[in-house]
Amino acid sequence: MSFTPIDYNPYDFANRRHIGPSPEEMVLMLEAVGAPSLGALIDETVPRSIRQEIPLGWAPLSEQDLLARMRAVAGRNRVLTSLIGQGYHGTVTPPAIQRNILENPAWYTAYTPYQPEIAQGRLEALLNYQTMVADLTGMDVANASLLDEATAAAEAMTMALRSAKSKARAFFVDENCHPQTLGVVRTRAEPLGIEVLTGPAESLDPAAVFGALFQYPGTYGHVRDLTEDIARLHDKGAIACVATDLLALTLLKEPGAMGADIALGSSQRFGVPMGYGGPHAAFFACKDALKRQMPGRIVGVSIDSRGNKAYRLALQTREQHIRREKATSNVCTAQALLAVMASMYAVFHGPKGLRAIGERVHFLTNRLYRALGAAGAQVSPKAFFDTITVEVGVGQAGILAAARAEGLNFRKIGTTRVGITLDETTDEQVLIRCLRAFGIEGVPPHRAELSFPESLLRESDFLTHPVFHMNRAESEMMRYMRRLSDRDLALDRAMIPLGSCTMKLNAAAEMAAITWPEFANLHPFAPVDQAAGYHEVFADLTGKLCEITGYDAFSMQPNSGAQGEYAGLMTILAYHKARGDHQRTLCLIPTSAHGTNPASAQMAGMTVVVVKTAPNGDVDLDDFRAKAAEAGDRLAACMITYPSTHGVFEETVREICQITHDHGGQVYLDGANMNALVGLVKPGEIGSDVSHLNLHKTFAIPHGGGGPGMGPIGVRAHLAPFLPGHVHTGGREGPVSAAPWGSASILLISWAYCMMMGGEGLTQATRIAILNANYIAARLKSEFPILFMGNKGRVAHECILDTRPFAAAGVTVDDIAKRLIDNGFHAPTMSWPVSGTLMVEPTESETKAEIDRFITALLAIREEIRAVENGEITAEESPLRHAPHTVEDLVADWTRKYPREQGCFPPGAFRVDKYWPPVGRVDNVWGDRNLQCICPPVEDYAQAAE
Amino acid sequence: MSFTPIDYNPYDFANRRHIGPSPEEMVLMLEAVGAPSLGALIDETVPRSIRQEIPLGWAPLSEQDLLARMRAVAGRNRVLTSLIGQGYHGTVTPPAIQRNILENPAWYTAYTPYQPEIAQGRLEALLNYQTMVADLTGMDVANASLLDEATAAAEAMTMALRSAKSKARAFFVDENCHPQTLGVVRTRAEPLGIEVLTGPAESLDPAAVFGALFQYPGTYGHVRDLTEDIARLHDKGAIACVATDLLALTLLKEPGAMGADIALGSSQRFGVPMGYGGPHAAFFACKDALKRQMPGRIVGVSIDSRGNKAYRLALQTREQHIRREKATSNVCTAQALLAVMASMYAVFHGPKGLRAIGERVHFLTNRLYRALGAAGAQVSPKAFFDTITVEVGVGQAGILAAARAEGLNFRKIGTTRVGITLDETTDEQVLIRCLRAFGIEGVPPHRAELSFPESLLRESDFLTHPVFHMNRAESEMMRYMRRLSDRDLALDRAMIPLGSCTMKLNAAAEMAAITWPEFANLHPFAPVDQAAGYHEVFADLTGKLCEITGYDAFSMQPNSGAQGEYAGLMTILAYHKARGDHQRTLCLIPTSAHGTNPASAQMAGMTVVVVKTAPNGDVDLDDFRAKAAEAGDRLAACMITYPSTHGVFEETVREICQITHDHGGQVYLDGANMNALVGLVKPGEIGSDVSHLNLHKTFAIPHGGGGPGMGPIGVRAHLAPFLPGHVHTGGREGPVSAAPWGSASILLISWAYCMMMGGEGLTQATRIAILNANYIAARLKSEFPILFMGNKGRVAHECILDTRPFAAAGVTVDDIAKRLIDNGFHAPTMSWPVSGTLMVEPTESETKAEIDRFITALLAIREEIRAVENGEITAEESPLRHAPHTVEDLVADWTRKYPREQGCFPPGAFRVDKYWPPVGRVDNVWGDRNLQCICPPVEDYAQAAE
Repeated sequence: MSFTPIDYNPYDFANRRHIGPSPEEMVLMLEAVGAPSLGALIDETVPRSIRQEIPLGWAPLSEQDLLARMRAVAGRNRVLTSLIGQGYHGTVTPPAIQRNILENPAWYTAYTPYQPEIAQGRLEALLNYQTMVADLTGMDVANASLLDEATAAAEAMTMALRSAKSKARAFFVDENCHPQTLGVVRTRAEPLGIEVLTGPAESLDPAAVFGALFQYPGTYGHVRDLTEDIARLHDKGAIACVATDLLALTLLKEPGAMGADIALGSSQRFGVPMGYGGPHAAFFACKDALKRQMPGRIVGVSIDSRGNKAYRLALQTREQHIRREKATSNVCTAQALLAVMASMYAVFHGPKGLRAIGERVHFLTNRLYRALGAAGAQVSPKAFFDTITVEVGVGQAGILAAARAEGLNFRKIGTTRVGITLDETTDEQVLIRCLRAFGIEGVPPHRAELSFPESLLRESDFLTHPVFHMNRAESEMMRYMRRLSDRDLALDRAMIPLGSCTMKLNAAAEMAAITWPEFANLHPFAPVDQAAGYHEVFADLTGKLCEITGYDAFSMQPNSGAQGEYAGLMTILAYHKARGDHQRTLCLIPTSAHGTNPASAQMAGMTVVVVKTAPNGDVDLDDFRAKAAEAGDRLAACMITYPSTHGVFEETVREICQITHDHGGQVYLDGANMNALVGLVKPGEIGSDVSHLNLHKTFAIPHGGGGPGMGPIGVRAHLAPFLPGHVHTGGREGPVSAAPWGSASILLISWAYCMMMGGEGLTQATRIAILNANYIAARLKSEFPILFMGNKGRVAHECILDTRPFAAAGVTVDDIAKRLIDNGFHAPTMSWPVSGTLMVEPTESETKAEIDRFITALLAIREEIRAVENGEITAEESPLRHAPHTVEDLVADWTRKYPREQGCFPPGAFRVDKYWPPVGRVDNVWGDRNLQCICPPVEDYAQAAE
Repeated sequence: MSFTPIDYNPYDFANRRHIGPSPEEMVLMLEAVGAPSLGALIDETVPRSIRQEIPLGWAPLSEQDLLARMRAVAGRNRVLTSLIGQGYHGTVTPPAIQRNILENPAWYTAYTPYQPEIAQGRLEALLNYQTMVADLTGMDVANASLLDEATAAAEAMTMALRSAKSKARAFFVDENCHPQTLGVVRTRAEPLGIEVLTGPAESLDPAAVFGALFQYPGTYGHVRDLTEDIARLHDKGAIACVATDLLALTLLKEPGAMGADIALGSSQRFGVPMGYGGPHAAFFACKDALKRQMPGRIVGVSIDSRGNKAYRLALQTREQHIRREKATSNVCTAQALLAVMASMYAVFHGPKGLRAIGERVHFLTNRLYRALGAAGAQVSPKAFFDTITVEVGVGQAGILAAARAEGLNFRKIGTTRVGITLDETTDEQVLIRCLRAFGIEGVPPHRAELSFPESLLRESDFLTHPVFHMNRAESEMMRYMRRLSDRDLALDRAMIPLGSCTMKLNAAAEMAAITWPEFANLHPFAPVDQAAGYHEVFADLTGKLCEITGYDAFSMQPNSGAQGEYAGLMTILAYHKARGDHQRTLCLIPTSAHGTNPASAQMAGMTVVVVKTAPNGDVDLDDFRAKAAEAGDRLAACMITYPSTHGVFEETVREICQITHDHGGQVYLDGANMNALVGLVKPGEIGSDVSHLNLHKTFAIPHGGGGPGMGPIGVRAHLAPFLPGHVHTGGREGPVSAAPWGSASILLISWAYCMMMGGEGLTQATRIAILNANYIAARLKSEFPILFMGNKGRVAHECILDTRPFAAAGVTVDDIAKRLIDNGFHAPTMSWPVSGTLMVEPTESETKAEIDRFITALLAIREEIRAVENGEITAEESPLRHAPHTVEDLVADWTRKYPREQGCFPPGAFRVDKYWPPVGRVDNVWGDRNLQCICPPVEDYAQAAE
């Protein structure tokens, strides 16, 4: 019979989704790298001595099976209307924003806007965010988001410590702050030797503190004017921090008008679903005088090579990737995507709309208050915005149960009170159900009256900038979001070969569930039994991550990689202390470490001891041994990255772990490079004790243009008892995030990724990530020296191209990076871990075709460099220096020494589908010298060529 | 107290979503049009005499309430696994395609690609579709989709009639065809005097027919070689049509290899959800010799002004908008969006993947067949692909119930048989459940063996073009879809002021539900009680449409506007016939009518009598009266459009209706312009008897780049008994579509639109549509004469700009249309209804800001025309003739008589966010002269500037 069935599985992971190269391409690539097989290449790359014995065990699911399973899991969550408040609120995500931002790869696959020329769209959206925050809080400067309100409060504390004239070492936290905020502040204060005082505001002794944090409105609802408290603090040289609520500030006097130095909070209720804890963007704003002490990313305005307005990140010298342990904080990943959503929510509603929403919530709360009061309930406070507290005595359990029977979650406060917080989604029916839970039938009529003193009424305007007054028909909103996204280059147009950032595919099937209401609308402090679906995912994902890493336990709480580092170090310290080793505070960190490592160690109160790098890029083992010996019983930990940040599997990793253990220290293995390990090497088996995993790198959570991220930590069994606790789960002390399971909703993405890849699929991804990197190294090494290779001449999952040889001709690494924009690529990581180099990480998701396009581009750039080296053209006159080229260059008269064609369409660039950067090369210095961090005046927005 | 609550409702429809102008903008616009108020403007525009008395009654729902209601409705559908087959199959929509096409406004808000320069992306996707269809069927030419398989079969019949040498008037339909296909073919045959013969293929007498239709595989599963049947037909000069299945053709000998003249079918199972009937794209392909007789849109390859490859619609002279009653069919709206999805499914899977899917389904069916046979069941046929039929005698009801208990729907055939059709989603578990329904436990092992004769095995390759061999990693697929969409200009970037096309917003909230599995995965022939949610929507939507139109009943069956026209006319004819008025076959149609009107009348077997237009653009009443009188008792109907296609509310509409009724005729009022009536005028109240509604115009269904559409018809009570029936619902004869409720799933969009707007919102939309049009007329009338205004100097919801005065200077309407692309706009409707004019319809969704940008553009174009008129530049040398300008123009040396700046950035164009057309002006003539309708060779795809 002539029929031969086809040897091809259309649902095979290897042929689609995450594995870029096709089987045919793999053969060609192996040929190019000179390896007889993929297995042989891996053997040459990853030392046999550290390889895991047992392959990862679970079978892959098809996309449809995954989605079916996900729906079943979703069905096990019970979505009640949560009126718990406490920093998390029901909100209406405008569908146009959900569809065109949250579900649009042009937004969610973008990277952090370090390359401003290809990020003008999201930079504008983030500048809108900063303007919105500064306006609503009445502060001068705002950053482009932090991880959550609780960590923002902790950042405020340390910023106050840096800024205050007062020499006191105590920080006061008003008892009206959210308990999770107090928890995180306490965690962060302890290693820094800060005493946290708490109690009623009246108990504050301004002379005893370097700063104080108030919550406004308070966690139990109270609003009061803080002007006098703040003035008293200022008298003593202390800093006043106010945790606040953006919606309340549409109606209430703003913290800036009370004299606050720092204002912070969550922008979640501006259209970002609760998602069982996150991700959401925390906001952070301060007075102008303090801005250089501000943590996190700040977007600013500068100019480009033609003098046109251009956005970029400002004051980067404050940040950990530059200042390391001297940075203002370890904040790296922000919550960019969520900040963008919140900013669009404000653009959509405008000041009038926001005010109207605020009033609506307020008047509904007023009706609730009146109804309860009329029925004789003991309701407090008298002055409130959206939250009231009811004294119910021994009836608490009954009331909470009655509420649940009505489909509502109230907040349980102590043992005798319940809290009720209304929100944008509250309607007449919810009010009726609320009251019915108290046995009250009917609701009092609407009254447009304030439930706080008139003196607390906001007097200033806000969101006066034209962007917040655009016509808000959905067509225009949709077009605004499209235009901004079109300015940017994200993964949906080209590979982003950023070393150490693992810009892999974020598959559509993995992203689907995060917006399902069963996952999106759960309050993080809802009773755990309402989140059975979520907890099933947590448990299964934990099991898989344990299998992958060789660890015994995981905490999902850290909501970024840096947060994970901090949590891991704190876990180590807690372990040492429990054994009486209070003196163990030294941390060995190689010079090649990520900047967050020393910054996190500093935050954990550790003393950083830097270990040298050997000429081949490895940790200098002799120096390590000497430093460890010198530390002796003061050694708390070492922090290493594996494979190293130089992109090499160091053969000595087991020895480093051994030395550390020999001196009683713990090994922290930074999970940044897990994409080179999954399925091949288990950190827990080679001697490491703790790691964080960047789920937004290795496990397919998108980068979102600079966040969200997730940085859960895995530990070996002896450290498990010391993982972060949380007030909601009644666990141990030491919470590091506001929410008990961090940014829970995006764990769904990593889970979906693991489920669909299966154990073998994940392992194959690792192998192909290594193949792709070695292919690039093989193809480029004759033109760009490759720094740091393993002893068999292989790199790991990334490779470092040395561009320092071109400096003699005047060509900089910046020139190459910007020239790549002309080719339609995001630049590789620049000047890290070695100045003057480019670190390239293709990930497994890229096809040979796309990698070849990138190689073509780099080889063409090399020819342009050669022309400069040969004196055919100067660096200043060359297309390298003029890069990136814009349409403006083409429209203007062309006086360059090279043809337009060469300038705009270098090899590798698409012709029809060319990406045109909206601005020329951005002047960073000008921007920092002329700092502007809110939206520029309207004339700069005029676009039509009238 | 100083507090004043804000007077603003953030959820007010008037301030967002569909109503473009803000209240402030409305004031300015009314000033510009010189109307004291919106009410006054409407009074001047819409004659009082025809206005409805009672406003539309229902209250609006917020987006969140709508979505909650939609979820509740979804929950009332029960999604079983349907193995019914009969042309509808379970399929896996690749999530990347769902997210990046079906849920992406860049794709779904685009218009039909009549302006090829701004439609190169979707034209490429549709060319891929044609290539895929031609390859798989083995035919020479394919079109870019028809409405459904049944209407495609009817089109094949009429095409056969036009093409056959045989003079016979009968058409044979194999009894193995789907019953709904036979139904629609019968409907369409009757008015044309075609006799439909049916029976077993063996009963076919080739000499007696002009053509025959076979189903391959047959509706009961049988596959047989048709070569001999076809040869016998050819011997007698008859045409052989084959309804077939694309997935089966990955394995089976293709119709082309059997000598078929025409092949057709549904491409639904290539990744398009069943959606309880649609929308899906029907495919249609034929031999080269017949191509000029082909119905529907055909994409072809041509060149642009620089001689570069460019796509555009080919052979448009066949189509109704040009040939009117002499057109090959009335097909206008196609199913472009769904054809794009199916083409991407093929690009994604490639030939190997498709073949593997086909084999998998086939082998599973083989196992099912063996298991049933082994258990002693009477199973047929012996040769099958994916469908088998089981004789169950009196056990039929029991088996069907047992299947349902297993979560399965089998097909009920007659009273003693059940049919089972497997599909891509079938897995081991489904097989087990299938057999369990027959009381059989366990399944036989997999065998890679064919269940049809080896002679039927496909021998030819398919999808050999490189586009079907691209690397199919999701990253690359995502980027391909993004690149194509970036080439196009859709509503997500700019207004599309197409007169008569009502390119309004398609709101995200309205689009959300169509992809929910409860709506997407229902088989149209599933038991009605499993679709309670759908039927709730049908009933509520019908009620609202009746209230809006003043009609008494609706049929949701017609799945396009043209289909609605046809169905309406057939309803009228059935009514006449029931009264014995068989002679009533004349149809009065004004010259200004849409081209589909006469084409539909011709299809209904009517004789078209053209009525003159008066100089003011109205129907010439005297002529109408005379023609009606002349028709006398032969008058069947008149077809009018209201407001007229000239954009005017004719005062005489009641009189026209009266005259028609006086002569015993029925009034067909074309609903194309309902956007000017909703809430103000009810067609049923002013004398009309039937209308179709273009739900894809007036009721917010997106145009999808050329479909889907929906054209339900409303009728007054006396016509209700004559609405189309359907074999599935056991209704009256006369089905017009394959599915009983047309493209059911997109009815959700119109329902959501009506629910969220509320009655007053819909009425306000109408008012603002009229305001927007009058604003444009007022602002432009001094520079562009406005053709046809009402007697108070007002236009309706659109206005016609006369550009004929510029002809003297050599400036054509084409020049203006293409120049608008440089300004970033889709051109208005060109040369219709009057040659040399532009018809502009802004719709209510556009803001004043966007309309002003459009006006700015047109006024600047007028200045450029003036420069030509003044002799400052010739038309040939002017930017008008060189439009649209491309990046290629900028890169090349600039030798034009005007500056680059003027060429590329005319007033109104965005600067940073400029849309660049990928090609210059397309040469239509060249393309039709060098017809090529499948993908061009690979070298044309080379993009990288290597």
